[in-house]
Amino acid sequence: MSLADVTTIGFDADDTLWQNEHFFKMTEARFAELLADHADMETITARLLETERRNLSYFGFGIKGFVLSMIDTAIEVTSGRVDAATIAEIMNYGRALIDHPVETLPHARETLEALSETHRLVLVTKGDLFDQERKLAQSGLGDFFDAVEIVSDKTMATYERVFARHGDGPDRAVMIGNSLKSDVLPAIAAGAHGIFVPHPLSWALEHAEPPQNEPLYHEIEHLGELVPLFHPHSSG
Amino acid sequence: MSLADVTTIGFDADDTLWQNEHFFKMTEARFAELLADHADMETITARLLETERRNLSYFGFGIKGFVLSMIDTAIEVTSGRVDAATIAEIMNYGRALIDHPVETLPHARETLEALSETHRLVLVTKGDLFDQERKLAQSGLGDFFDAVEIVSDKTMATYERVFARHGDGPDRAVMIGNSLKSDVLPAIAAGAHGIFVPHPLSWALEHAEPPQNEPLYHEIEHLGELVPLFHPHSSG
Repeated sequence: MSLADVTTIGFDADDTLWQNEHFFKMTEARFAELLADHADMETITARLLETERRNLSYFGFGIKGFVLSMIDTAIEVTSGRVDAATIAEIMNYGRALIDHPVETLPHARETLEALSETHRLVLVTKGDLFDQERKLAQSGLGDFFDAVEIVSDKTMATYERVFARHGDGPDRAVMIGNSLKSDVLPAIAAGAHGIFVPHPLSWALEHAEPPQNEPLYHEIEHLGELVPLFHPHSSG
Repeated sequence: MSLADVTTIGFDADDTLWQNEHFFKMTEARFAELLADHADMETITARLLETERRNLSYFGFGIKGFVLSMIDTAIEVTSGRVDAATIAEIMNYGRALIDHPVETLPHARETLEALSETHRLVLVTKGDLFDQERKLAQSGLGDFFDAVEIVSDKTMATYERVFARHGDGPDRAVMIGNSLKSDVLPAIAAGAHGIFVPHPLSWALEHAEPPQNEPLYHEIEHLGELVPLFHPHSSG
């Protein structure tokens, strides 16, 4: 089964279609700066990551969980001496993250526009429902998608279900994303193609190794390389 | 169009199938107790509600948003003097809410079991994806539903979409829930029947007036009255 037989294309959202991790990293740096009297930047970011990992089963993915983990970390790193002004500042970081305009990645718009003429497009994104709906609306990309699935986790079963519901099953589908762990490997396990589009920033909890000798696996450098994969005879 | 023509039954979850607001109210009381040196209970709960209202467009519905609003309120009510131990305690209230076992309401299980044999059942619930999936799994009610839709808001358009996707359109559907504002009125606006099952506790932001002379509107006292509405000739 080659990419030519694919009828349904799944896209991840954060760091595949628009910037996300970049704003979290910036916030993380401001957070470390805010607590600079108590520990160095490396210690603080390591503790924050540890807290996020521990809180994942409570809070899931998204900005609200991130803010709660920053507050947890601030209490911990200051041995319970953090003051209310610092907590209020962390809350403001959260509101700033939510208020930040969505910045679509290069080639995102024209790629979706071209592929939407020939394929069924499905947005498959993990995270907080509220965050993701807001970002999709702001991105202006919503109209290119035939369906949007906001899910709490991305497993093989997720892709089986999504591509059965919105397409002709995983055998005739491909999933495109910046996370090997969430977007590419479980989609391939479900029998779909997976296309990895690395993003320079990737959350440490999303790391995985690329598969070896896997015919369903593809890798591109940016979204601009996508249309020629599906429309090889198009002049551009 | 009478209830006899209905093929698809939508159910709300929180305070329709299981207790929810009760645990929030208990947490609110503990929160007011925690800040008792700074203001009386009425002032604190009024300020918290005000904060939740203000934060709704940032945080949506759910436990994480509630915890963040409690922290905001604590900073405000103490004029920025709240200490880290108090903030840590508020964080613990959030974890306790998340950890609390789900308590299904009387008649929920047998009602779903009976109706699932003759109708398509759809869970339509608002709130945090992560919270709602966990509660549904814990409730043990998941298998009775043909579909689950976790949505960020419940409008006429939501019910049009959900009942078109999972049933024979809103004309052949009914929505059952404890909120006139979220479950009953917008479903009726979409052309479906709406059945109001009042819950003794209801969040102030969910208040609305019942409709007058509306043939699509029904009201019952508890879920035990539901099966006879759909199976009038059944003996049990």
